[in-house]
Amino acid sequence: MSGARIVIVGAGFGGLQAARKLSGRGFELLLIDRHNYHLFQPLLYQVATAGLEPEHVAKSVRALLREHDDVRFLMAEVEGINLAARRIFTTSGELEFDYLVLAAGAENQTFSLPGIEAHSLPLKDLDDAVVLRNRLLGAFERASRTPDPVQRRAGLHFIIIGGGATGVEMAGALTELIEHVMRRDFPELDFDEVGVSLLEARDRLLPGMDPDLSEAARVALEDKGVRVRLEARVLSYDGKTLDVEGIDPIRTNNVIWTAGVRASRLVRELGVEHGPAGRAMVRQTLQLAVHPEVFVIGDAAYPEHIGKSLPMMAPVAIQMADHAAVNIVRLERGQTLLPFKFSDPGRLATIGRNAAVAQIGRLKFTGFGAWLIWLVVHLLRLIGFRNKLMVFLSWAWEYIFYDRAVRIIHGETPHPEQSSG
Amino acid sequence: MSGARIVIVGAGFGGLQAARKLSGRGFELLLIDRHNYHLFQPLLYQVATAGLEPEHVAKSVRALLREHDDVRFLMAEVEGINLAARRIFTTSGELEFDYLVLAAGAENQTFSLPGIEAHSLPLKDLDDAVVLRNRLLGAFERASRTPDPVQRRAGLHFIIIGGGATGVEMAGALTELIEHVMRRDFPELDFDEVGVSLLEARDRLLPGMDPDLSEAARVALEDKGVRVRLEARVLSYDGKTLDVEGIDPIRTNNVIWTAGVRASRLVRELGVEHGPAGRAMVRQTLQLAVHPEVFVIGDAAYPEHIGKSLPMMAPVAIQMADHAAVNIVRLERGQTLLPFKFSDPGRLATIGRNAAVAQIGRLKFTGFGAWLIWLVVHLLRLIGFRNKLMVFLSWAWEYIFYDRAVRIIHGETPHPEQSSG
Repeated sequence: MSGARIVIVGAGFGGLQAARKLSGRGFELLLIDRHNYHLFQPLLYQVATAGLEPEHVAKSVRALLREHDDVRFLMAEVEGINLAARRIFTTSGELEFDYLVLAAGAENQTFSLPGIEAHSLPLKDLDDAVVLRNRLLGAFERASRTPDPVQRRAGLHFIIIGGGATGVEMAGALTELIEHVMRRDFPELDFDEVGVSLLEARDRLLPGMDPDLSEAARVALEDKGVRVRLEARVLSYDGKTLDVEGIDPIRTNNVIWTAGVRASRLVRELGVEHGPAGRAMVRQTLQLAVHPEVFVIGDAAYPEHIGKSLPMMAPVAIQMADHAAVNIVRLERGQTLLPFKFSDPGRLATIGRNAAVAQIGRLKFTGFGAWLIWLVVHLLRLIGFRNKLMVFLSWAWEYIFYDRAVRIIHGETPHPEQSSG
Repeated sequence: MSGARIVIVGAGFGGLQAARKLSGRGFELLLIDRHNYHLFQPLLYQVATAGLEPEHVAKSVRALLREHDDVRFLMAEVEGINLAARRIFTTSGELEFDYLVLAAGAENQTFSLPGIEAHSLPLKDLDDAVVLRNRLLGAFERASRTPDPVQRRAGLHFIIIGGGATGVEMAGALTELIEHVMRRDFPELDFDEVGVSLLEARDRLLPGMDPDLSEAARVALEDKGVRVRLEARVLSYDGKTLDVEGIDPIRTNNVIWTAGVRASRLVRELGVEHGPAGRAMVRQTLQLAVHPEVFVIGDAAYPEHIGKSLPMMAPVAIQMADHAAVNIVRLERGQTLLPFKFSDPGRLATIGRNAAVAQIGRLKFTGFGAWLIWLVVHLLRLIGFRNKLMVFLSWAWEYIFYDRAVRIIHGETPHPEQSSG
C-alpha cells in the first residue's frame, strides 16, 4: 500500500489495538505515549489496596509490539496538535502525519470543587495507585503513634467519592484490606475508630447498570461495613474537613476521588466540536468532521450518531480501534467508510470476596457467580501471560490466606507522615 | 522475667532476627524502622535491572511479626540516641530503653569524591533500585530519540564503580538486560554504541574472595561484554564526564556507585569508639564498652576481638542478632556473657545466566554449579513464602524466555528525560 504515515497517540487499550490492527498493511506506524508501558486500568484499585504489585498491571509497550516491526514507539508527551498542518508537538520534537489515531484517553476531573483537586487522591494512573497505597498504609502507621483520639479518627476515616465501578470496587477492596489485614497488623488500634464511607451524588450506585444491581451492590457494601451515602453532594474539602450538602462537615484526612473523568487536555484543547466531558465529537466513521484524516477513539471520543456517551471502558476503546483501523484501510483503498456500531459486552463490578454484580445483555448476576465471571474476564483481558500468571497467583494467595501481601510503603511519597495532618 | 524494655533499631536482617529471638521471654519489645518493610538487599540489583518487582524483595515488618505479640513496631526515623540517659529521639517522639539493640545498618559512602554523591546512582535501598531501573530503561528511550551520536553514546555508556559483589552482579545483570532484552526492544538503535564498564580501584574483583574466583569473575564478565578496568581510581564526576586516574576522561551520563558503604549516620554520631567505616567498636559480647546495656550488631558493628571488619552481609547480622539475644537473656539472669564467634558461611556472587562464583570453606565453585548454589541459597533466605514463589517464577520466566519483564518506567523519577543530559 501507500506507506502513509500514521501516528497513534496513546498506548492504552485503544491505541495499542489500533497499532496492532494497522500493522502489516504497508503503513509507517508510530505509537506515542508518555509512559513506556500499557496500563491495565481496571485493576488499579487492587494496586491501591495492596493486593497487586504495580508492575503486574502494566506491561512494556515495546514488549507488546515486538512482533510488529512496522510500528515504532516514542516515549514522549504530546503537547499539542496542529490539525490543519497535520503536525504533532511533543516533548521530543515535532512530527508529521498523514493519518492520526487519537486515543489519548481520559483524566481525572474534579469540577472545580474547592480543594478537591489539591487535597483528594485520584485513582487514574499507576502513580495515583501507588500514592494511594502509601497513603492508606501510612494512615494506619500514623494512627498507631497518634495519642489524640480525634486526630486518630480523622486519620482512619476513608471517604470515597463517586459510586461508579471504581468507587464501588475501591470501597469493597479497602474494607477487606482493613478487616482481613490491618486488623491483624495493628493490634494496638481500636478498629471502632476506622471508617469507610462511599458518597454518591445520584440516588444509586453504579448508575450505568440495572437498578437491581445498584441495590445489590449497596447492600453488599453495607454488609462489609461501608457506610454508603446516596444523594450526597460534595461541596469542598480542605484536607481536613469535607463539606457535603445537607449534612454535618466530616473530619477526614483521606478523600479518594473517583467521581469524575473527562477527555484528556490534549483532546479538550483540540479546537473541534466537543460532546460531554470534553470528548471530541466524531462522525459515525469515527473521523473528525472537518479532518477526515483524524480518527478519535476510546475515552477521547463522542460518536455523535449514537447520541449518548459510551462508557469509558476497555471494550469500547478496543471496538473503536478495530473500526478506525478498518476505515483507514478503506480510506486508502478509496472504499466507502463504515459506520461504527457499539456492541455492549456488559458491565461488571466486584465488591470483594465472592461478591460482585454483572450485567450481560439482559442477564443479571450477583454474588459468587458474578464474582467468578469478573475474575475470568479480568484474567483473560489482562495483557501478557506473565502478568496473568502473577495476578492469578496473587488472587489465589489473597483468597486462601485473607492476605494483601503488597503492603509496603515505598516510592512516590518519601515519608507518608509528611503528607497530611 | 523482668519486663525490661528493649528497643531494637532497624528491621534489616539483624534487627528482625533479634526481635524474633527476644520474643516470648517476658520483655517489652519495640522494633523501629523508617520503612514499614524488611528489605532483602542481596537481590536489589535484580530490581534495578528489571528482573524482579520491588515488592518481591520487601515484606511488611508487621506481617513478619504477627506471631510475636510482645513485639511492637514503630515506623519512624531515629534521629539520635542519648546513651547516658537511655533515650532515643525519633521523628515520632522520644523513647526510653533498658536495653538497646542497634542494628541500624550501613549507607552509601562516596569518600567526598567531587560530584560522585550528587551525580552517581547508588544501589543501597529500594528507592535507589527503582530510580536506577528507571534511569537504565529511560536511557534507551532517550537514545532512541537522540540524533547526535556523541550524546547517544554518552547516554548509553553505563559505568559501574566498585568491583565487590554488588558491582559484579550489577554489571552481569545489566549486560543481560541489554543483550537479551533491550537489543530486541530497540531495533532502531545501534548496539555498538552501548557499553558497560566495571571499574575497581584494587587489582582484582571480589576482594573478599579467593583470587582464582576474582579472576573467574573477571573472565566471565568480559565474556559477556563488560569492560573490566582494575586499578582504576575514580577522581571526580560532573554528571557528564568521569575522571579516572591515568586514563582519558570518560563521557557518560550513567555512573552507578557500589564502591563504598559505611555505618549509618546514627551509628557514626553515637559518640563511642569506632572501627573502620564508622562501625561502632563493640566488645566480644557485642556490647558497647561504656554502655553494656547497648548491643550493636550487623553492618553497624566492629567486634574489636576479631580484629578485622566482618563482611557486611546477612549471615553476619543474623549470627550477631542471635548472639546479642542470648547475651541479653544471660545479663537479665545474672549469668556471664558469652563471646561472639563468627562462623563464615562462605561468599557468593552471581555473574548472570549459569554463571557465578562461590566459596564455601575451602571449596571453590564457578560456572553452573556456583550459579545453582546461588539460586538455592537466595531463594531459601528470601523472607516470606509468597516472595519466594514469585521470585522463583520470575527467575524461571527469565531463564526460559531470556526476558526481564519488569521493564516499566514508573515511580521516583516522574520523567526520566529530565534527569540528565
